[in-house]
Amino acid sequence: MKIEGKDVRAMWFEKGAIKFIDQRKLPYKLEYYTARTVDECAFAIKDMVIRGAPAIGAAAAYGMVLGKDKLKDTADTLRKTRPTAYDLFYAIDHMLKQIKSGKDALKAADEYVEEIIDRCRRIGEIGETLIKDNMRILTHCNAGALATVDYGTALAPFYIAHRKGKKFFVYADETRPRCQGLLTDWELTQEGIPHAVIADNAAGHFMKIGEIDMVITGADRIVRNGDFANKIGTYEKAVCAKENNIPFYVAAPISTFDMTIKSGNDITIEERSRDELAFINNAKVMPDYTQVRNPAFDVTPAKYVAGYITEEKIVEKIEDLGIY
Amino acid sequence: MKIEGKDVRAMWFEKGAIKFIDQRKLPYKLEYYTARTVDECAFAIKDMVIRGAPAIGAAAAYGMVLGKDKLKDTADTLRKTRPTAYDLFYAIDHMLKQIKSGKDALKAADEYVEEIIDRCRRIGEIGETLIKDNMRILTHCNAGALATVDYGTALAPFYIAHRKGKKFFVYADETRPRCQGLLTDWELTQEGIPHAVIADNAAGHFMKIGEIDMVITGADRIVRNGDFANKIGTYEKAVCAKENNIPFYVAAPISTFDMTIKSGNDITIEERSRDELAFINNAKVMPDYTQVRNPAFDVTPAKYVAGYITEEKIVEKIEDLGIY
Repeated sequence: MKIEGKDVRAMWFEKGAIKFIDQRKLPYKLEYYTARTVDECAFAIKDMVIRGAPAIGAAAAYGMVLGKDKLKDTADTLRKTRPTAYDLFYAIDHMLKQIKSGKDALKAADEYVEEIIDRCRRIGEIGETLIKDNMRILTHCNAGALATVDYGTALAPFYIAHRKGKKFFVYADETRPRCQGLLTDWELTQEGIPHAVIADNAAGHFMKIGEIDMVITGADRIVRNGDFANKIGTYEKAVCAKENNIPFYVAAPISTFDMTIKSGNDITIEERSRDELAFINNAKVMPDYTQVRNPAFDVTPAKYVAGYITEEKIVEKIEDLGIY
Repeated sequence: MKIEGKDVRAMWFEKGAIKFIDQRKLPYKLEYYTARTVDECAFAIKDMVIRGAPAIGAAAAYGMVLGKDKLKDTADTLRKTRPTAYDLFYAIDHMLKQIKSGKDALKAADEYVEEIIDRCRRIGEIGETLIKDNMRILTHCNAGALATVDYGTALAPFYIAHRKGKKFFVYADETRPRCQGLLTDWELTQEGIPHAVIADNAAGHFMKIGEIDMVITGADRIVRNGDFANKIGTYEKAVCAKENNIPFYVAAPISTFDMTIKSGNDITIEERSRDELAFINNAKVMPDYTQVRNPAFDVTPAKYVAGYITEEKIVEKIEDLGIY
């Protein structure tokens, strides 16, 4: 990803520490957060310094490097940070195996992260074939470079299509409560891809009046029957897309597919703090007396999904991925 | 409506001026806005000092009192303020007729407003029969006392049911961009009705996991085929309700039914300013470079509506109202 003209990643390992772009400060300020300990890395994941399933996996991989002398404790600490993100568990288990088999921890983590980026690039190249000139495409949350170290999942096809000269327009849902749509806005602005941010409430309207031709989102976890967990609101957009015969695609690397869980009904949904809704960019947007319910994710059943865009191919059904 | 123990209305006429509760300041501050001229009244409607279709009608009726010496100009000025609100046109035409037939303007306006309040109370009594103990009910935007001078439309059944001692729980959509869900929150808090505010994105999730038993919203305009315009996001909630077999009711006085328009496709949708999305309670919640699309309303087709709660009865189809 380019930031002010320079190639930058959402995180990297440097001098015994993990450096993160602090996504709590974006899009208003570009600041970096340094994690020198496992606890600081766990904090970065939990407090959303870094977010997005693949990036959380990458952070966990580097976290295992920081805590390589106490592997079991490190794995336990990191596993508790974000229960919905399957990549977290995948990365921790992968690192445990690699380190136990004698591999250098940092080398294993670097390879893991390079592989994430490479997968995202391939998701972009494969997904890009769905984008035709003059399409209007909706996305929800931020499944971009910030969420995956580089390229993104849902946004990767946009990057590749734009670099190939295709003309299209993106509608980015604001994505309350945390407004990650503004991260998508920030990425698309850096890249020069035409787009507009809309209130989450407006997505259905634009579908209904024929202004949206396709929806692409990321996923935090895709399970055996094709149901998937993603940022709260994804379910509503998928239902409305189906109702309006608009194809809804999920872009995710195969590491996001969790074949140990049968159905979306078995996915645990985090409810997060009141402050996520009550404050935006440190400004109070709800009175002190306001009580909230704040589920962070929802589960979208497979029947709403036109296809899964992976680093290997686009499939309509999970069976066709050959990972059962 | 009670405010700090006192009976107060959303607006009233006093000493040659209209006094409004300034809803741009709520829920943070209780301030009043005084309109002494037609232009000030038009500003109050346009800038959303007052909002909600019946309250806009009431404001227009009092606006006609302020401009009774230049009726045609006054009507023209007021008609331009909020094109989606049918009550606006209804109130202006009603006042024109009354004044031309020799009636005192203020008396005519007062009667019009009393009738609005009386209709809302009856909507509450009729709609209350739908509420059973332990129900969880979703509402969108604010169709409460603030929106109708008193009682509200969608919230009127809640007031009546609560005063009868029924136990139920309300989910109030935040309702971005303008967060009118916080006005609902404010009203329900004053009245002591148990409730929580949720991100607009979370409504579908709560429907899907079985935590919502019924949806009641207001309407800005209901047309001949039963389609209706309401706050942006209503369409999404209605589609998700249908998908989850949850009855979706629209509460509105008969003055909101516009039999001159055949279908929802013929309703004009306002797009409003960028600042509505980019600022909340004067705090900047989007960077300066962010471009937006901001439709204020959407149209929900009749097929998603289980019934229309009016001051006369609940009907499944407009035909059954006997107003064709």
